[in-house]
Parts: sequence; structure tokens; C-alpha cells
Amino acid sequence: MAHWFRRRARRIEAPRLRPRSEDLATPRLDLHEFTPPVGEFLGRAAYVQLMLFENLSRAVSTAPTTAAKAAIGRAAEISIAKHRALADEITRSGGTVAEAMEPYTAAVDEFERTTRGADWFETLLGCYLTSGFLEDFFARLAVGLPAGERERVAAIFASADEEPLLAEQLRLAIADNARLASRLAMWGRRLVGDTMLVARSALGLDHGGSSAEHRAEPVFTELIAAHTRRMDALGLTA
Amino acid sequence: MAHWFRRRARRIEAPRLRPRSEDLATPRLDLHEFTPPVGEFLGRAAYVQLMLFENLSRAVSTAPTTAAKAAIGRAAEISIAKHRALADEITRSGGTVAEAMEPYTAAVDEFERTTRGADWFETLLGCYLTSGFLEDFFARLAVGLPAGERERVAAIFASADEEPLLAEQLRLAIADNARLASRLAMWGRRLVGDTMLVARSALGLDHGGSSAEHRAEPVFTELIAAHTRRMDALGLTA
Repeated sequence: MAHWFRRRARRIEAPRLRPRSEDLATPRLDLHEFTPPVGEFLGRAAYVQLMLFENLSRAVSTAPTTAAKAAIGRAAEISIAKHRALADEITRSGGTVAEAMEPYTAAVDEFERTTRGADWFETLLGCYLTSGFLEDFFARLAVGLPAGERERVAAIFASADEEPLLAEQLRLAIADNARLASRLAMWGRRLVGDTMLVARSALGLDHGGSSAEHRAEPVFTELIAAHTRRMDALGLTA
Repeated sequence: MAHWFRRRARRIEAPRLRPRSEDLATPRLDLHEFTPPVGEFLGRAAYVQLMLFENLSRAVSTAPTTAAKAAIGRAAEISIAKHRALADEITRSGGTVAEAMEPYTAAVDEFERTTRGADWFETLLGCYLTSGFLEDFFARLAVGLPAGERERVAAIFASADEEPLLAEQLRLAIADNARLASRLAMWGRRLVGDTMLVARSALGLDHGGSSAEHRAEPVFTELIAAHTRRMDALGLTA
């Protein structure tokens, strides 16, 4: 799996060479052909968002300073509000929140276990990178939902953003400790592989090489380019 | 300290004998003579609320079922929103959130450590009882704040309530496991003593027997009566 990811990572370096303005001008690709039925989409997205919140709340509890605790507390609030908004959509569509999430708990919990950082810094980088990647992914996947649902889900993911709060805390930590940068760069590279698997699984892409995989590839190229920008924003090499 | 509390607990059993309707009709006592300056009030209340949220988020992470996780996630959202609203008041009054909270972190963290439950059920009972007691306490203590601040803080504590969500999960757990009730009853009795110490410390009542302590006593009587009702609501003996 790591090999698969490294091969892919080499193939998709091209976007980094384009100027950022061109990146932004390119029509954003979406995943509408892969969008599952509403109940599946919401159940999975809601549980992933709950896991992202749990990771953030762990970063609140273990924060080394009161200032970091307060800042990450704000990010945790944003994250749980997104989960609850997705949960409300499940209820609105006639589902039960726990039942809708249940089929996805085992895989998402396993992801959480394997990407739990060794300390607060790794936990926080994990929150920053996986929230960024997965919220971006589900926002794109939502494009194929029925109208109404689609707009409401888009609004949830377009609402307040945890990212700047987390980036600031990470930049402060890295500025304070030069040796942290290389350790976090390595951790970030490991995380992106595991995070992509969560996204691939949501698309039903469990085996490489299918034609569906080829059609999804441009979106993964963009998601990885966004990941690279997140790493760049901390001065880390992706 | 435990002795002090047991003596007090015996002295204040009277309210349990009054019918609930009379309890509700009694004018609610407040603590205005003990209210500290705004900065102190907000710093302590905001950090206590952040600790209550952290405990709830731990209960989310360790919840035994997806349904419990979802329900407690909602309670955690309510709790962190109260913390953030208190933090916003610190900013509005010209303070810095982290600096305002800093003087209270050591004592509150120590409370959190000594009241961490042995498992999910004890953690959840702790969230239910300590959130109920301390939010009730800070709402009463806010009565002595300057107008404006007083109304805004009252609105924060009068907003959505975690209590019914937590009570429901606890009732389900107890119904499912008869032996849990006696263990939780014991844990609840231990928690209330430690929780009262947090409140006493906020009033500057570190030594027993002062005249200030006598003036504060009716409020503690009411806070303990409310605690007893919370235990009753689960079928537990306080």
C-alpha cells in the first residue's frame, strides 16, 4: 500500500509546478459519478467528522499551554458543529444518526488508531492534515447528491474552517523547536497515505488499476496538491 | 476534608423532604456578595467550562456504542459553545483568554485528575454531576457581576443544556446493568465532595467556620439539593 502511494505521489507532482493562480483558476474537479446514495454519504461523512473532532479534542486535552488549549478548543467547536450539522441531515432525511454511521465505524476507528500521533505535535499535525484532506474530499463527493441536500452539505463544509487555527499553533511550535520540522515532515508524509485510503474506500476503490480509479485520479491529484500546500504553509516538505 | 463534607451533607438533607413544587417556588438564592471582579470570574468559569468539555469529549471517544457517541457528541458541542462564549466575554472585556484562565489551571487540572472515572460509566456520571453542579454554581455567582456582563453570562448558562442528554445515556446504561447503580451511587457521593471544593475555592472559602462560610451556606444547601435531584433522576441514592 505504501508502494502504491509512493508511485502515485511521483506521478502527481506536476501540479506543484503550476503557479498558484492557475491552480485556483482551474475548474474544481468533482466526484459526482462516485457519489453514493444520500444515507451512505451522510453516515460516512458524519462519522469521519466525529473522528476528526475526537482527535481535536484529544489535542485540546494534551495541549502544552493554556493558549494552545484555547485556540484548539475553538477548532474543536467548529469541527463538532460540522458533525452535528451532518447528523441533523441524517435525521432530516428520515434516518437515525447512530444507524447511519454504524457501517463505517470499524474502518474509521482503525484509521484513527493507526494515525494517532506519538505526542501532541504529531496529533495536532494529524488534525490539521486529515481534517483538511477529508473535509475537502467529502465536499467534492457531495457534488453528486440530489439538489437541496447538495447545497446544505456544501454549506456545512464551507462554514468556519479549523485550518488557520491549527496552522498557527503548528507554526508556533515549529518556530520554537527546529528539530520538530523534520519529524513532522515525515509524519505528514505517512499520514497522507493512510488518509487517501479512507477516501479511496469511500469511492469503492479498493483495488488499483480499474477504469474508475483512472477517472478518479485527477481529483486525487488536486487533493494531494492541497495537502502539499498545507505542508508548505508550515514550511514542511511534503 | 471528606469529614467536613460528610458533616455538611448530613446537615443539609432537609431540602429533600420538601415537595419539589415548593423547592421551585423558593426564591433562588445567589452569591452576589462573593462575586469576584469580572476578569477573575470569567477566567475561572471559562477554564472550568473547558475542563467540563474535555471530560465530555473523553466520554465521546470511549463511548461503548455509536448511539451513545452521537448523543454525547451533542452534549460536548453544547459544553464547548459555553466555554467559547465565556472566552468571547474575556476578549470583549479587554482580556486575553489564555492569560485570564492561567491562574486557575493548576487547581482545575488537579480536580480533573482526581475525578477521572475508572471507566466510561464513571466518566459520564462525572460529566453529568460536575457540569450540573458547577454551571449552576457559576450562574449564581454571576449575579454580582456588573449589569451587561451579568445578563450576557446569565444567557450563556441559560442556553442549551447538556443534562437531559447525559441523564438519558446514564439511565439506559443503568437499566442495562443492575450492578452499575450501586457503584455509580458511590462514585456520585465521592464526586460531590470534590466538586464543592472547586466552588468553595472560587468563593475564597478555604478554611471552614468563617462568617462568610455561614452566609454562603444556604446556597450550598440549594446546590446540594439540586445534586440530589440529579442523582434521584437516575434512581441513585445521593
